[in-house]
Amino acid sequence: MPEPTKYLLAEDEIPTHWVNLLPDLPGEPLPPLSPRTGEPAGPDDLTPIFPMGLILQEVSSEPEIAIPDAVRDAYRLWRPTPLYRAHRLERALDTPARIFYKYEGVSPAGSHKPNSAVAQAYENARAGVRKLVTETGAGQWGSALAFACSLFGLECEVFMVGSSYDQKPYRRSMMETWGATVHRSPSELTQAGRGQASHPTGSLGIAISEAVEVAARADDENYALGSVLNHVCLHQTVIGQEALTQLGMAGEAPDVIVGCVGGGSNFAGLAFPFVRLVLRGLMRTRFLAAEPAACPTLTRGAYRYDFGDTSGLTPLLPMYTLGHDFVPPPVHAGGLRYHGDAPLVCALVRSGIVEARAYKQNEAFAAALQFARTQGIIPGPEPAHAIKAAVDEALAAREAGERRVILLGLSGHGHFDLSAYDAYLSGTLEDPEFSEADMDAALARLPEAPAIAF
Amino acid sequence: MPEPTKYLLAEDEIPTHWVNLLPDLPGEPLPPLSPRTGEPAGPDDLTPIFPMGLILQEVSSEPEIAIPDAVRDAYRLWRPTPLYRAHRLERALDTPARIFYKYEGVSPAGSHKPNSAVAQAYENARAGVRKLVTETGAGQWGSALAFACSLFGLECEVFMVGSSYDQKPYRRSMMETWGATVHRSPSELTQAGRGQASHPTGSLGIAISEAVEVAARADDENYALGSVLNHVCLHQTVIGQEALTQLGMAGEAPDVIVGCVGGGSNFAGLAFPFVRLVLRGLMRTRFLAAEPAACPTLTRGAYRYDFGDTSGLTPLLPMYTLGHDFVPPPVHAGGLRYHGDAPLVCALVRSGIVEARAYKQNEAFAAALQFARTQGIIPGPEPAHAIKAAVDEALAAREAGERRVILLGLSGHGHFDLSAYDAYLSGTLEDPEFSEADMDAALARLPEAPAIAF
Repeated sequence: MPEPTKYLLAEDEIPTHWVNLLPDLPGEPLPPLSPRTGEPAGPDDLTPIFPMGLILQEVSSEPEIAIPDAVRDAYRLWRPTPLYRAHRLERALDTPARIFYKYEGVSPAGSHKPNSAVAQAYENARAGVRKLVTETGAGQWGSALAFACSLFGLECEVFMVGSSYDQKPYRRSMMETWGATVHRSPSELTQAGRGQASHPTGSLGIAISEAVEVAARADDENYALGSVLNHVCLHQTVIGQEALTQLGMAGEAPDVIVGCVGGGSNFAGLAFPFVRLVLRGLMRTRFLAAEPAACPTLTRGAYRYDFGDTSGLTPLLPMYTLGHDFVPPPVHAGGLRYHGDAPLVCALVRSGIVEARAYKQNEAFAAALQFARTQGIIPGPEPAHAIKAAVDEALAAREAGERRVILLGLSGHGHFDLSAYDAYLSGTLEDPEFSEADMDAALARLPEAPAIAF
Repeated sequence: MPEPTKYLLAEDEIPTHWVNLLPDLPGEPLPPLSPRTGEPAGPDDLTPIFPMGLILQEVSSEPEIAIPDAVRDAYRLWRPTPLYRAHRLERALDTPARIFYKYEGVSPAGSHKPNSAVAQAYENARAGVRKLVTETGAGQWGSALAFACSLFGLECEVFMVGSSYDQKPYRRSMMETWGATVHRSPSELTQAGRGQASHPTGSLGIAISEAVEVAARADDENYALGSVLNHVCLHQTVIGQEALTQLGMAGEAPDVIVGCVGGGSNFAGLAFPFVRLVLRGLMRTRFLAAEPAACPTLTRGAYRYDFGDTSGLTPLLPMYTLGHDFVPPPVHAGGLRYHGDAPLVCALVRSGIVEARAYKQNEAFAAALQFARTQGIIPGPEPAHAIKAAVDEALAAREAGERRVILLGLSGHGHFDLSAYDAYLSGTLEDPEFSEADMDAALARLPEAPAIAF
C-alpha cells in the first residue's frame, strides 16, 4: 500500500465550532474606531450595514463559536476539503521535506471564500435582510457571495473592480449564473463612484466605498466583507481545524505553515487553529505569510490605524497599511491587492509569531507552473505566492538535510486566471514594483488616530 | 444526523480493474474495417498510431482488465470522485425522486477525460513513445491529455477545432500550462488541414484527420483518441464502479442512469458496470443517453459502418452516424458535436438496452442553471443535457408519485463555458436545428461497407 495522496474526512467531521483567536492574543484587543468621532466603535456603529449575529461574532471574546446547523449543512456541498501530500512535487524538488496542501478550490466558487460567504448570508437571511451588497477584486469573493445568496434566497449586488471587470468577464458571468447583479466600479450609482469616475482601473478601496454606501441606504440591505474583519477570519477557521485532523491521520505535525495574505482571511483560516496551540505551548510551528512584492503590506507597511476603504466610510482598524488610498500596481493576484490586512493577522506579525515574506509575480508563477506540472491542479495567482514560499522552504530543507513538514494553504484554482499563465509562458508577465514614493504620499494622508503602542 | 450530501471512498477503493463490456454483448463483435481494404482491421492496422498495450485492450475479450499500478497512482491525484445526493435540487423540484450525481469535475482538467488520458499516456510512455498527438473540440480532451503527458514525461501536440480555439483561449492556455503545443485546426501543418484551409470553424472530424496524419509520420509519435474506441470506454468504467459502491453506501439501487453522449466514453464509463449487472439479470435499471438536438446521432443517425474522421484515415466503425463529413451546428456543448458514437454504446442503443433522447440547447441550459442555483456546481454544457434528462425523470416521478432513484453523470464543470451561460442569461443563446437535408447529403457520401445485420 503506497503512502496516501489525499487525506479525506467524512461530513460529520466538518468542525462544529469556529476558532476565535481574539481572546488568545496578549493584552486588550485594540478597538476599531468610529470614522466620524475617532472614538472606539461599538456594535451600534456597525448595525447600519451588518446584522447583529455577525457583530456579536466580530467582538466576541468566546474562544469557540458554534457553527449554525444551516451553515454546516451548506458546507456539506463541498466540505470537508481534501488535504493532499505533494509526492510528485517533492520528487521534482528532490527534497526530504514533506509538503501537504489543503485545497479549498473544490468549493463551487473555486476558493476558500464561501466558508465566510455562507455564514454571512445565513446571518443576514435570519435577520430578515433582503439583499447583500459587496465589492470584489479578482472576483473570488463576489462569486462566493453570489453562490451563498443563491442558497439562502437573498439578492446579491456586486461592485467589481474595473480592471477585473474588463479582464475577467467570466467571473462576472459566474456571479450572474448564481443570480447576482454586477456593476463595474467606479460606477455612476454612488457618490463614491462618481467621485472617482475617471479612475481607469478602479481599486478594491473604491469598490468597498461604493458597496458600503449602497448598503447603508436601505434598511433591508446589508454589506458583506470578504476578508479583514474578525468574523471573516473566524469563519475561515474550518480550514485549519480540518487540516489539523488530517495531518493527524498522516501522523505529522507541521514545522511550518504557509499561506498567502491579501486581506488575511485565508491565512487566518489555515493558521489560527495552529496558532492557538502554539500560544498555549502545545505545538512548535513557524508561520509564513506570503504577499506580493507589488503590495507588500506586512513587510513594508506602517502599523497604524487606517480606514478599510478609500473614501473613509469604514471604521478605522489597527493594521499594517500602505495607506487607504494607495492603489497597488495591477498584478494578476487581484485578491492580494489590498492596502491593509486583517488586524488579527497584523497583530501576529507585530508580535513575531507570524513571519511575512514578499514575492515578485514572475517567481510566484514559476512555482505555480511547477506545481501544475507535478500535482495537476492549476493554482490561482494568490496561492502561487504561498507555493513559492513552500518551495523555498522545501529547498532549504534539502540544503539542511531536514525532514521538514510543510503545510501549504492552496486557497483556490486558477481557472479564471489563465491569461496570467499565458503572459508568464510568453515571457510578457510584468514584475511591477512597489513604489516607496507612492506609499510615502499615501501615508501622509493617513487619518489622525492614536498611535499603537502594542 | 442528516442524510449525507456526499458519499466518499478512500484511495484504496479506487477500482483495481476496468470493466470490459465487449464479451457481454450478444453475438460476435463487429470488427472495425481497414480504410484501405474494407476488410476487418487487425492489430497490425493500428500499430502505426497506437501502442500494443492499448491495441490489446481495444480487442480484448477478457471481462476485466487490471489497471496498472502507475495509472492507479495517477488516479489518486483526484480519484475516487464524490457521489452527491442532490437534496436541494430535489426540494426545488418538489419530487419524491432521489437524485444522485457522480461528479468528475474534480479532476485537474475538470472532466472525466483524464481517466483515459492517464491510461493512454502510461501505455505510450511504456512503449517508448516520445510524443502524443491528438485533437480537441471543446478543449476537455486536449486538456486531459496535456495533463496526463506532464505526469509521464511525454510531449503533447494538440489540434484544436478552429471555432473553439477562437472562442476558448483559456482552454489553450490550460494545455500550454501543462506543457502542450496547441494548433488551430484546420492548420497548414498537414495535408488534411491544407485541404480544408478555408473552412471557417473547423470540425472534430478535420482535427482528427490532422492529428492522425502527424502521428503516423514518425515512429516515436502516436495518436490518442479521447472517446469512441473500446479502450477509451474501458478506461472510463472506474466511474460506474465507484458509483455502484457509493450507491451501496446510500442503500440505493438506481432505477434510471442518465449520462450525456458525444463520442460515448462518459456515458459508457458511468453505465457499463451497471449494464453488465442488467445483462446478467442481477439488476433492473433503465439507461438514458442524452444528446444535443443539433447533433442527434443516436436518435436520428443511420446504423452503418463509417469513418471516425472527415478524411477517411481511420478504420471504419459500426455505429450510428450522421455521416463522417457532417459538420454539426456550433452549439456550446462542443464535446457532443461528433457525427458518430462509440460502437459499444451504439450496440446497446440498437438492442434497446439504452434509450436515447435529444435536447435543445436552451432547455439544457435552463436545467443547468437550476442545478447551479441549488447545488452550487456550474455544469459544463455537455452534462447540462444529462441534467435536463434527470430533471424530466424527477418531474415524471412526481407525477407518478414514485420514489425513483436517478443516477446522473456530471461529467465536468463549466468554468470555461461561461460565455454560453452569458448568452443564455441574456436570451441570445441560439437553438440551432439539425438539418435533415445536410444529413441526407452526408449519408450519400458514406463509404461502401457491408450492411450491419445486428
